[in-house]
Amino acid sequence: MKLSIIRSACGSLRIHPARRGSGVGGLSRRCHPALPTHSRVILRAASAASRGGHNPVPAVHFGNPPRKEDGFEYDTSLSEVVRSTKEAMLALQRRNSTVQPLLAIIQAGEDDRLLEISKKIAGRIGLNITQICLEKGCSEDEIVEEVLKLNEDPGVHGVYLHLPPASLTSRVLNTLKPEKDVDGISDLNMGRLVRGDISKGFVPPVASAVLALLEKHDGPLEGKAVLMVGGEGPFGVALQCLIERSGMVAFKSHCSSKNLQSQVMQADAVVLLGAEIVDFPSTWVKPGAAVIRCTPTLESDEHAAALGLGSLTAAYRTQNVVHSCGRWLQEQQYQPWHLRSLKLQPLTPVPSDIEISRAQTPKSVDQLAEEVGLLPEELEAYGRSKAKVRLSLLDRLHEQPDGKYVLVAGITPTPLGEGKSTVTIGLVQALTAHLKLNSFACLRQPSQGPTFGVKGGAAGGGYAQVIPMEEFNLHLTGDIHAITASNNLVAAAIDARMLHEATQSDKGLYNRLVPSVNGVRQFSPIQISRLRRLGINKTDPASLTPQEVSTFVRLDLDPSKITWQRVVDTNDRFLRKITVGQASTEKGQIRETGFDIAVASEIMAILALADGLEDMKRRLARMVVGTSRCGQPVTAEDLGVSGALAVLMKDAIKPTLMQTLEGTPVFVHAGPFANIAHGNSSVLADKLALKLVGRDGFVVTEAGFGADIGMEKFFNIKCRASGLRPDAVVLVATVRALKMHGGGPNNLSLVAGGCRSNLRKQIQIAHLFGVPVVVALNVFKTDTQAEIDLVCQIAKECGASDAVPCHHWAQGGRGSLDLARAVNEAASRPGNFQFLYDIEMPITEKIRTIAQKVYGADDIELSPEAKDKIDYYNKQGYGSLPICMAKTHLSLSHMPDKKGVPTGFVLPIREVRASVGAGFIYPLVGTMSTMPGLPTRPCFYDIDLDPVTEEITGLF
Amino acid sequence: MKLSIIRSACGSLRIHPARRGSGVGGLSRRCHPALPTHSRVILRAASAASRGGHNPVPAVHFGNPPRKEDGFEYDTSLSEVVRSTKEAMLALQRRNSTVQPLLAIIQAGEDDRLLEISKKIAGRIGLNITQICLEKGCSEDEIVEEVLKLNEDPGVHGVYLHLPPASLTSRVLNTLKPEKDVDGISDLNMGRLVRGDISKGFVPPVASAVLALLEKHDGPLEGKAVLMVGGEGPFGVALQCLIERSGMVAFKSHCSSKNLQSQVMQADAVVLLGAEIVDFPSTWVKPGAAVIRCTPTLESDEHAAALGLGSLTAAYRTQNVVHSCGRWLQEQQYQPWHLRSLKLQPLTPVPSDIEISRAQTPKSVDQLAEEVGLLPEELEAYGRSKAKVRLSLLDRLHEQPDGKYVLVAGITPTPLGEGKSTVTIGLVQALTAHLKLNSFACLRQPSQGPTFGVKGGAAGGGYAQVIPMEEFNLHLTGDIHAITASNNLVAAAIDARMLHEATQSDKGLYNRLVPSVNGVRQFSPIQISRLRRLGINKTDPASLTPQEVSTFVRLDLDPSKITWQRVVDTNDRFLRKITVGQASTEKGQIRETGFDIAVASEIMAILALADGLEDMKRRLARMVVGTSRCGQPVTAEDLGVSGALAVLMKDAIKPTLMQTLEGTPVFVHAGPFANIAHGNSSVLADKLALKLVGRDGFVVTEAGFGADIGMEKFFNIKCRASGLRPDAVVLVATVRALKMHGGGPNNLSLVAGGCRSNLRKQIQIAHLFGVPVVVALNVFKTDTQAEIDLVCQIAKECGASDAVPCHHWAQGGRGSLDLARAVNEAASRPGNFQFLYDIEMPITEKIRTIAQKVYGADDIELSPEAKDKIDYYNKQGYGSLPICMAKTHLSLSHMPDKKGVPTGFVLPIREVRASVGAGFIYPLVGTMSTMPGLPTRPCFYDIDLDPVTEEITGLF
Repeated sequence: MKLSIIRSACGSLRIHPARRGSGVGGLSRRCHPALPTHSRVILRAASAASRGGHNPVPAVHFGNPPRKEDGFEYDTSLSEVVRSTKEAMLALQRRNSTVQPLLAIIQAGEDDRLLEISKKIAGRIGLNITQICLEKGCSEDEIVEEVLKLNEDPGVHGVYLHLPPASLTSRVLNTLKPEKDVDGISDLNMGRLVRGDISKGFVPPVASAVLALLEKHDGPLEGKAVLMVGGEGPFGVALQCLIERSGMVAFKSHCSSKNLQSQVMQADAVVLLGAEIVDFPSTWVKPGAAVIRCTPTLESDEHAAALGLGSLTAAYRTQNVVHSCGRWLQEQQYQPWHLRSLKLQPLTPVPSDIEISRAQTPKSVDQLAEEVGLLPEELEAYGRSKAKVRLSLLDRLHEQPDGKYVLVAGITPTPLGEGKSTVTIGLVQALTAHLKLNSFACLRQPSQGPTFGVKGGAAGGGYAQVIPMEEFNLHLTGDIHAITASNNLVAAAIDARMLHEATQSDKGLYNRLVPSVNGVRQFSPIQISRLRRLGINKTDPASLTPQEVSTFVRLDLDPSKITWQRVVDTNDRFLRKITVGQASTEKGQIRETGFDIAVASEIMAILALADGLEDMKRRLARMVVGTSRCGQPVTAEDLGVSGALAVLMKDAIKPTLMQTLEGTPVFVHAGPFANIAHGNSSVLADKLALKLVGRDGFVVTEAGFGADIGMEKFFNIKCRASGLRPDAVVLVATVRALKMHGGGPNNLSLVAGGCRSNLRKQIQIAHLFGVPVVVALNVFKTDTQAEIDLVCQIAKECGASDAVPCHHWAQGGRGSLDLARAVNEAASRPGNFQFLYDIEMPITEKIRTIAQKVYGADDIELSPEAKDKIDYYNKQGYGSLPICMAKTHLSLSHMPDKKGVPTGFVLPIREVRASVGAGFIYPLVGTMSTMPGLPTRPCFYDIDLDPVTEEITGLF
Repeated sequence: MKLSIIRSACGSLRIHPARRGSGVGGLSRRCHPALPTHSRVILRAASAASRGGHNPVPAVHFGNPPRKEDGFEYDTSLSEVVRSTKEAMLALQRRNSTVQPLLAIIQAGEDDRLLEISKKIAGRIGLNITQICLEKGCSEDEIVEEVLKLNEDPGVHGVYLHLPPASLTSRVLNTLKPEKDVDGISDLNMGRLVRGDISKGFVPPVASAVLALLEKHDGPLEGKAVLMVGGEGPFGVALQCLIERSGMVAFKSHCSSKNLQSQVMQADAVVLLGAEIVDFPSTWVKPGAAVIRCTPTLESDEHAAALGLGSLTAAYRTQNVVHSCGRWLQEQQYQPWHLRSLKLQPLTPVPSDIEISRAQTPKSVDQLAEEVGLLPEELEAYGRSKAKVRLSLLDRLHEQPDGKYVLVAGITPTPLGEGKSTVTIGLVQALTAHLKLNSFACLRQPSQGPTFGVKGGAAGGGYAQVIPMEEFNLHLTGDIHAITASNNLVAAAIDARMLHEATQSDKGLYNRLVPSVNGVRQFSPIQISRLRRLGINKTDPASLTPQEVSTFVRLDLDPSKITWQRVVDTNDRFLRKITVGQASTEKGQIRETGFDIAVASEIMAILALADGLEDMKRRLARMVVGTSRCGQPVTAEDLGVSGALAVLMKDAIKPTLMQTLEGTPVFVHAGPFANIAHGNSSVLADKLALKLVGRDGFVVTEAGFGADIGMEKFFNIKCRASGLRPDAVVLVATVRALKMHGGGPNNLSLVAGGCRSNLRKQIQIAHLFGVPVVVALNVFKTDTQAEIDLVCQIAKECGASDAVPCHHWAQGGRGSLDLARAVNEAASRPGNFQFLYDIEMPITEKIRTIAQKVYGADDIELSPEAKDKIDYYNKQGYGSLPICMAKTHLSLSHMPDKKGVPTGFVLPIREVRASVGAGFIYPLVGTMSTMPGLPTRPCFYDIDLDPVTEEITGLF
């Protein structure tokens, strides 16, 4: 047994370290230090409680020592409860060796006999106890504060409010979380008991004790007549319910009743509940009848027994604590979802996306979170319809097997759009809301820039959407803003540092960088990291040689080799190339640079690939921002800014929970550019979702662009970083896009051409990785049945496990049922996943492998700059990073206008760059724009807000 | 009576417009359309319920028609309940004429007799009813969905679940909000009833009906013996509690009991509860005894009475609805706070700000919100410790008188810092946590830029802080990010528009700006606004003349006269002056411009001054971004971007609720620059807070810089915009700052000098506005008692209402008790507030008034540019805007090194600018930096995040 005592001083509380410790058999106690050591608390509690009838009695009620004439075998009953509780506890600990059921006691004043008994019983069972000793006359606020702390403490499984009845106010009782109310005295638990549903509540321990005694007592319970004397309070009601539910007949009387004698004489058992000392001649009692005295008497405190009803009550309370702990453990475990899906009644013609989104009322995100097995403490709501989910979930469900992992990719895109997002969302709507298979969609957060530029949301569309779509498309939970702030802090640090280095001596810089604070001069941890990297293993700032000082203080960045750009989340083409530092305050340190759109920041790629806070921090620290004049890479950590970046990104690392139109769960997290980065949503969202859906569930995520780019990077970069293995690929195609790949206008042979060229090639690419493919034909109303049939037929001929038409846009999940079944089937086959290339291959070979095997190029051709860069990266030790090709998405080749399956080309590699923090090399095939512009009539012309209803119009 | 019927179709629901209508006597109904018109629903409900004992009975229980031999005067009882309920309803409506109590009924199938009775009774009382008719075999999910909708609907005050008992599952019952559970059958309400606390719950109407009959029946209740036959279910328990609580004695029996006859013969009243038809000869019944039959019989449905127990039950349910509506109205009203303050136990020496912040566990923001009288639907949580508050609160508490309005200002600042923020926070901690006077602090949100530059948080410090301070200092709820996004969208729109105008013909531009979509060509509302401003009153795009087209499509911005800058929330000095548009894609349209820090954006000033969404939208639309080549101002609306800005800012307009170290409420909202803008937190936060604190409460807010700048702008700009009137000013001073104003080193005469110069002058400035001043001397441990006494004495001599030392930094609210008392005293005097100048005075005169009366200048001197600008603004109709002086804060004059009270100077006005959207003219006195820089060793060197504990270190 671990018993912890915690002292509660006026003002704040110091928590004794033992309380959080892991040792067994410890003891902690919170006591008011001013408490007189020898004061005794006379418990008048029960009397007042039962008289008033408004206060819960059991918490303070206690039984007399056994009276010989009772004829009860307290000992036997007690031993049985102790034994079974001990067994239950051991069973729990077999399931989870770290779990320690813990009862917290809030008391006012010193220990009394009842507490001594309770502790003794807990000792026999091996239950840990924490006592919180408040002052005798403590206020309601003080009690509430302690209760709230215990509510929040996941290590506490039950709370015993051992307080005077006047302190057991409605507020106190109902502040206590019902799941920790092991005395069953809160309104909710009392109601549960009365309604007969105690699957979530608790039977008051003293009632259990009385029942146990009645049961032990001779004869069957059925039909036994039990007289309850003086039990008007809620405890009397509870006991009466339990007695009647056991098949006995309960009678109630008062000690002052004229009929008491005849009533006692008729009863098979008498339970004395009231405060008054009821005494009647034993001759009244029917031979063999039991008399149970729950009435407290003053002297009971004096010669209270270690046994008796008090002990039995304490034992049952202990049992409730173990029970509560078991429920808590159960809650921690994965459980199948009971998800309330939202009904859809699709209209024809299909209204605009925002109209559909607005017509559906989303579930509250708390409700959704509960349905998918998240605990309240794992959730951070952001308004009513979105919430961040804490990564601690991964620890909690560590033992839980992952669900199936499905990637949605597409054929080579055309300007018409293929609808990968709608397929993804339609698929999870079908899986979860219709097939009742747990599933999660993991989506990218879209940049806000294009939202105000060119129409087209990223939340899906039609009846396959994430709602509310305006929240999805606007600020969401601020992750991109956090990236912008982080990225630009690095940029500001670079230019400020160059200015300061240009205008200060080594000594001046050193004095400022390592200042003397209150006479003490020391390096910050981040500076020590830099010293280590420079090979200077010193910690005393005074001990550096002038040369070492110079090396340390001068990053000596080459202004022409700074690769770090600033970012904004706005389509601002005029920032593509700019000159900064033109104010006189910058002393002529001008240089050319530019802004990218925020999602092109390396920090976004890091967010998408990090597998935890520590990993993210490491990646942020090693980001290379430029090269020194002597050719050394300069990192964010060299700038001293990496800790601040981690602080700015600490909330962004938590995925955001939202829902589809049918109320099924979605994670939105990270959205790196699909060309200069890998274009996939976050590793962490996928990992959380795979745990939440459980073994038979599905996580469906989407890759950017066509399968040749998005899927290839998903496999070679994201899966390599995460260690996760995909179970199936859904390849999205449309008849009209296939026609474009087929080569021209409208007939079946063109469709067939598209299928036999681009579709087949993309299926083959997936097969290179050993992953089965289901082709999802996203049906448009212009498609003919013959076209649909033809695509499905040829897709299967080309090796797809299955090929099905999808109608999610017009019908929601119901329109994707066939796809859901096909995916379920394909993903259940044993996996055979493999990477396309070994990570240790030379950079050039890795590029060549992708170009030849995926794109179908004859070979690659490296520019001299590209060759130099590869040499440089090899020298710097970046040679074993995976490759993230920056190629047009409009063709399998580098030529955007070559549709179908181009052949006979050599892939030109113009340049090679590296995102060292994110962890990949990105060869540039052609020019990639990293800052979109606004058209002449941006869609913001149509966007408006009704100031009264707060409804948004014109957003998609 | 308004009865609304709403049809529930498979799939989604269409809400009949009548339901939301305001007419009285309407009728709406939701019915399953496929429901056969003539089907009858046989109610076996009650039988099953009472047999099972687990289902709540009253909802479906109903009485027989009155049996003559019962001897009850149903009519009399009914009339009484109907009359008293009607009266209660009228009383409610006298308090609030718009309120309409509404009962929602969820039923499965057609109306039955019980429903008909219910509707008839509601008709007699005038209660509105909404019926939701589900299909007979509807699923639990469907019921839950309807219940959830009714939960959320503030117009519904009670829900009657008229459903078969099998449908009344625990989940259904406990989904219903207890405050709408007018049948009192949820677990929580049942528990409340059993515990005897029904201040929040409801007595089941059928129990009320039975009790009323017993009461009516002859003789006093006290000691009456009531036999309950067959009431094992929760309803029986509830009834028994109520019977016993009325002083009667309850007995229970079964219809099969052998003793039934003798029990009946002994009873003064018999209540038949069970499902079985109990029949016994009337001879068994004691003469004069009552028999009440709650047992349903099949035929009861046939000849069910319009009167009888069914009617009485319906009447009591109606009474509960009216009662519920009354509670809801009460909740809507302001109520004194019952705020649980957090205890402080200050340590010596005082730890770092972040250590103090982290050592205190904040209340959950939901809890805090409830304590200060916010409704759950008015709150949007952002994580656990901050939440946005909806502006609808202003409507709800419209009738509520405002609290007292207190401004914290300072003497002329010195580099040492005076501590206005800590005084503000210490003051509300003292008022709320110690004096138990409701108070709110309204603070500015700090820019994130300086957080990573120079040390010093804005969340207060020591034991007077807003917690968690890292949340306060970092992203908060994203308002500044929203401002950045909005500001930069305007900037991108300006440059893109100039590029498009430069490269396209009138016709080309027109075709793109007003495109034909599906053959229809029309102006967007924002374009029609522009046409109106141009004097073109046409709506058909085809009807514009070529000249009108040209005027419409060409903003013709003069690149040299663009006043709009981009912003970042980073200290990035290299962006102060830049050249944009240097990429070849921008076709040589380069120009010089710059970035400001985000809080310097005009949009921030607008956020701070707007008094609602509509006002904000109007202000955003009229922001002037530059001048056309022919000298006309070009606005955000001309760019077509104002609707999008409102959308981006729709959440930012809601203030953020946080708390102090002692758990008292704080609003954080807006933080405009204190020199080029007015430097005060938002009007909306103050307005919300003034309603929440109520008549005797306090709202304490802070002005930037010294009183000559921050306070002057607070009065002349913010109070003018808001219409609010201040009740007192707290003027913060420190001994060490007073010494600097006194002229030199350390002795009492220097302190006296500082008091008699700068402090006196600042007190006089406040008095110019007719507002009483309390001087708060922020005590440092180096201050001597003699110094403290001297300051307080002189301050009072100089006209301060009071002057007190404050120790909040070391002691929290307890250290500011004297200040709190002094402020309470000063603010309770009758106000005499007046503006310094009339808004219609010429711009030059307004500037001169401020310079002479506030700064003590002899006169002002306008540069030629300033004169030209004033002429231009007069011509454009901006002449009656208030003045926002951009002057150094380090001196009362324009010369930063002149301390004390400079005299004999002429204030030079270098330039004059306007923030037309925010609504002020800002004359520049000297150069104002709007973009701070980073020092050589920015404080980000010390900032770090522990990846395991997620604790931040080094942040202040």
